[in-house]
Amino acid sequence: MALPPRDDAAVARAVAALDARFGDRCQTGAAIRDQHGHTATWMPTQAPDAVVWPVTTEEVQALVRICAAERVPVIGFGAGTSLEGHVNAPAGGVSVDFTRMDKVLAVHADDMDCTVQPGVARKALNVHLRDTGLFFPVDPGADASLGGMAATRASGTNAVRYGTMRDAVLGLKAVLPSGEVVTTAHRARKSSAGYDLTRLMVGSEGTLGLITELTLRLHGIPEAISAATCSFPDVEAACNAVIAVLQYGVPVARMEMLDTLTVKAVNAYSGLDLPLTPLLLLEFHGSPAGVAEQAQTVGEIAAEFGAAGFDWTADAEARTKLWQARHDAYWACHGLRPGLKSMSTDVCVPVSHLATCVGAVQARAAAEGLAAPVLGHVGDGNFHVLLQVDTGDAAEVARAEAFVGWLNDLAIAHDGTCTGEHGIGQGKAKYLPRELGPEAIGMMRAIKRGIDPHNIMNPGKIFDMGNAGPT
Amino acid sequence: MALPPRDDAAVARAVAALDARFGDRCQTGAAIRDQHGHTATWMPTQAPDAVVWPVTTEEVQALVRICAAERVPVIGFGAGTSLEGHVNAPAGGVSVDFTRMDKVLAVHADDMDCTVQPGVARKALNVHLRDTGLFFPVDPGADASLGGMAATRASGTNAVRYGTMRDAVLGLKAVLPSGEVVTTAHRARKSSAGYDLTRLMVGSEGTLGLITELTLRLHGIPEAISAATCSFPDVEAACNAVIAVLQYGVPVARMEMLDTLTVKAVNAYSGLDLPLTPLLLLEFHGSPAGVAEQAQTVGEIAAEFGAAGFDWTADAEARTKLWQARHDAYWACHGLRPGLKSMSTDVCVPVSHLATCVGAVQARAAAEGLAAPVLGHVGDGNFHVLLQVDTGDAAEVARAEAFVGWLNDLAIAHDGTCTGEHGIGQGKAKYLPRELGPEAIGMMRAIKRGIDPHNIMNPGKIFDMGNAGPT
Repeated sequence: MALPPRDDAAVARAVAALDARFGDRCQTGAAIRDQHGHTATWMPTQAPDAVVWPVTTEEVQALVRICAAERVPVIGFGAGTSLEGHVNAPAGGVSVDFTRMDKVLAVHADDMDCTVQPGVARKALNVHLRDTGLFFPVDPGADASLGGMAATRASGTNAVRYGTMRDAVLGLKAVLPSGEVVTTAHRARKSSAGYDLTRLMVGSEGTLGLITELTLRLHGIPEAISAATCSFPDVEAACNAVIAVLQYGVPVARMEMLDTLTVKAVNAYSGLDLPLTPLLLLEFHGSPAGVAEQAQTVGEIAAEFGAAGFDWTADAEARTKLWQARHDAYWACHGLRPGLKSMSTDVCVPVSHLATCVGAVQARAAAEGLAAPVLGHVGDGNFHVLLQVDTGDAAEVARAEAFVGWLNDLAIAHDGTCTGEHGIGQGKAKYLPRELGPEAIGMMRAIKRGIDPHNIMNPGKIFDMGNAGPT
Repeated sequence: MALPPRDDAAVARAVAALDARFGDRCQTGAAIRDQHGHTATWMPTQAPDAVVWPVTTEEVQALVRICAAERVPVIGFGAGTSLEGHVNAPAGGVSVDFTRMDKVLAVHADDMDCTVQPGVARKALNVHLRDTGLFFPVDPGADASLGGMAATRASGTNAVRYGTMRDAVLGLKAVLPSGEVVTTAHRARKSSAGYDLTRLMVGSEGTLGLITELTLRLHGIPEAISAATCSFPDVEAACNAVIAVLQYGVPVARMEMLDTLTVKAVNAYSGLDLPLTPLLLLEFHGSPAGVAEQAQTVGEIAAEFGAAGFDWTADAEARTKLWQARHDAYWACHGLRPGLKSMSTDVCVPVSHLATCVGAVQARAAAEGLAAPVLGHVGDGNFHVLLQVDTGDAAEVARAEAFVGWLNDLAIAHDGTCTGEHGIGQGKAKYLPRELGPEAIGMMRAIKRGIDPHNIMNPGKIFDMGNAGPT
């Protein structure tokens, strides 16, 4: 899908109209524009022509109508924590910053749902919910905006129990390229009412419309939470224990794995003394008796697979300490070779292929001389290789890029996906056709063309521009 | 969306080509055609021109290519248990009977998934899985085909814990109107790889393509299962208990409600002596200690809301007996006024609106003199009114149809949906625009046009032909 042609006069007209409509809430300064084309990644910034801060759905409609009339691109911006260049503006256009649409519009405690604007950050939502006994479980690590999380179908550490944004969004409102507002579903827990537009919008990365309201499923705060860690002789033993835990039906809330290199990094960063072997970290939610039983069952399973040092606790402070390795992992990995940039990967494979894939990663990283710590949401088969890259060394960058491509192909060859939770954006656009084939890409293009015929919604994302004919 | 124009010569050419290709597996006899336009409902039969039994994806491709070349409609047929006229052929065409595509292609026990052809019935799948320790949880009552269940986004009694077909399908293959085979996803537990084509196909009711392969999520057979029943003074008390159970986070596997009229019908039908009050039936899955704890917690909650006679058991035979009222409910309701036809409804509302909506149903049914027993998957807010209608009495049919329309509007007015699990088909097409508005219908039409520009895939379903312009 080619980028829409750029027409400087049209952009100027649209920006002038936005300036008249939004006043100070339309900005064109270079620093602000650069900040809105910048992502938490190694990808080069591609700044938009202007940034607008709407506060209502009606304002988003007005903005989209102005841009659509001039066929100027519109790019949603939440917290800027995307790892795949989602907020870049490769064809210019207007960045729609949702940070001022940050209201919790309603909490229906009896129905365990809430309706929010897209700029609400997930931590702020949980603070808001504090007194209701409810919480919003999807936790991608970063304090992302809920609109951005929905747009990228984000998940994180406790997806193994509570699901991803796919499961968390009951319905949403979005402004379409036509300026119309679509309501995809209401608040029923389930529905068979026509095409599942909610799930189509979740993960569409702003390429079909801009989400302006979300109704989210909430969960009761568990009566008790306990945590456990244990060390395994090797990755295969850890993965086999994970499979057994899942098959046994233990409702683990979180199940994370750090490989030996990550453990080593954490030991150095946080002054810990963990054994230099793969580490599994678990969290259990339930009644006090329930979490004790879950921990005991997992402890027995872990022992069967040769685990040592199964520690568990239901005490909040001790739990944080037990999970310190996980909390520190990102920055600890950065510390492996200070000054380098992190290149994240996001493959997800069936759990039975996890040990093979992680083993292949470690072997190739060693052969290539790359620092490639592995950190996984292993309950879902999703793992990240936090490649530490010297971006000043062209040969190392090339090796790292080849490594990422090889890893994506490895996951695809193992019935998996190149992205479990980060999305396609710009970074993975060339892998999507390899993963799903030309028929799926053709179907996605047909949907995109039908809804956004002039390709004004976040152009240059999801679809690989390298292989593309016209829109 | 208007029906495609009928061209008898084109139909004749397509049927001749299918006859040449499929031999005995292409049939045009009236009885067989009628059977394939017949649904488990009061709707009139609209027979196809021919019925074909393919056995492979390649044969479905060949069939679709033959029909597409002549612009002849193609209608998928599974077990024929649809309640909304999904298998009717209002514009004629070819019924594709999937009953011979009934192979379980692979079971990946370690990954807790399996790949099946669409004609596998859900009970047959569970028989096949018996020795793996795994089961497929979605249970719509009828022994439906898995392809049909996916196409209508079916669910049933244990959706409250295990989700619906939306959650159960990891990925699928489908033959598109072009004859191409699309793969929507592989076997990873989660993915952010582009538009969620899996969820778009699930619930698309055969209007975008024919599903020829499904990869399904499985679950471990619980170590222990227990059941409970309890009687409540009124519907409101029962609904409040349901809300409390959900908020408390008790992981109930099933939570069903029978209203007083349904209990009365069951007593008469099965010689039971249940109190003539609303009845809640529950099932718990987990460890032996876990299910005991769940039952105890629910018993305490039920008592708080005035429940009497909380009975529970972990014994399989006693469990069946305890749930006998639920198992017998459908036929028992039929027995309320023998010889009548059942007109099913399928609204789903947020649980906080459940008591209000059920109360309104009972009041209106009494005022109208309609036999309207209520049976609900109350954990999801989904309930069925099993209207018993004398189809020979035109005035009663009119009253019943007006009742169904009023009920759908009532659910929509309470933030709900006209269909929790049966789908839109023909029967609810006029309610879909009322529920989601013209923008959502416009978006669905854009998708339909992009993928099936000549409207050959199950025309006359989902989209209301009464309000439609051309395709």
